[in-house]
Amino acid sequence: MDKQLKESLIEDIGEKRYNHSLRVMETAIDLGQKYCTDIDKIKIAAILHDCGKFMDRENLLKMAYDFGIIVDTCMEHNPELIHGPLGSKIAEKKYKIKDREILESICYHTTGRENMTILDKIVYIADYIEPCRNFPGVEEIRNLAFKDLDKSILLAMEKTIIFLIGENKIIHPDTVKARNFLVIKSNELR
Amino acid sequence: MDKQLKESLIEDIGEKRYNHSLRVMETAIDLGQKYCTDIDKIKIAAILHDCGKFMDRENLLKMAYDFGIIVDTCMEHNPELIHGPLGSKIAEKKYKIKDREILESICYHTTGRENMTILDKIVYIADYIEPCRNFPGVEEIRNLAFKDLDKSILLAMEKTIIFLIGENKIIHPDTVKARNFLVIKSNELR
Repeated sequence: MDKQLKESLIEDIGEKRYNHSLRVMETAIDLGQKYCTDIDKIKIAAILHDCGKFMDRENLLKMAYDFGIIVDTCMEHNPELIHGPLGSKIAEKKYKIKDREILESICYHTTGRENMTILDKIVYIADYIEPCRNFPGVEEIRNLAFKDLDKSILLAMEKTIIFLIGENKIIHPDTVKARNFLVIKSNELR
Repeated sequence: MDKQLKESLIEDIGEKRYNHSLRVMETAIDLGQKYCTDIDKIKIAAILHDCGKFMDRENLLKMAYDFGIIVDTCMEHNPELIHGPLGSKIAEKKYKIKDREILESICYHTTGRENMTILDKIVYIADYIEPCRNFPGVEEIRNLAFKDLDKSILLAMEKTIIFLIGENKIIHPDTVKARNFLVIKSNELR
């Protein structure tokens, strides 16, 4: 890993989250090899996926406004949802990433979106299953990710929606649209 | 009930569904009395809420197009979702209803929507709890509807979302937006 990138990331998001990003990157590389995807893109997207998750949470909303991010109702009421779109802007401005596919995969790594790219999918699910994740059911999704990527994402999203209902938290409509898209696709393949 | 309206409704949606509409109307009237809402509006909205649920299912999509309804991906893949918006058009054109609030409550009675009106809420939940509904958990929601309308709708929507996940069916984003709105409102009231 580039030393300057590492230092800058650790300064912004802390060492613990940096180590999580390294694990996401390793998982994403494994998935990239399985699904024959551009490994260089995967590395950049995965290591930077949380670059908007600043330790200073209080300024997240202000930073989002400063970067011209359209802060929707969901983000207002669940600031956790800001770090994807914000990270995409930080990756572009601070880390000089120009590739739209990488920037979008960072933007949508928490919510997902309708008709995800293969890079979106790999970053999303690698973040969900990296080796230190240990919530109930993760092992099933971890195994599934290497067999049927879409199915693993569908299951992950449905678990997320049910979890958010139980926690009385906002469900982002993008997650529901992403999930519906996968349901429609799987029904069409039957 | 007006004889002509009754005959016309039975012709379009069948006697079984007409009887369901009568039960929804009775339930909605009870709720309207509890929540001091315009009973005349409630009667019209409730008796007509399913007027777009034509027995001839095959032509639903065609009729939606004919009425200029924007058929979204959800409706395309779950034609059950068409009858709300279609019913709203039928109520306007065939039954000469001009009141926007009534027409909208018919339009959104299946999915709900963000920031529902009191009429939207009463039609939605009356449809969910009318006396012949007997799925697991309905009794809890039935009781709750007369104590805390918002809470009963929140619970009904969450049960619906979880049911649709289990059935591998499309979840309309409007339902999620309606549910999020109620979550935010209840958190603000705490």
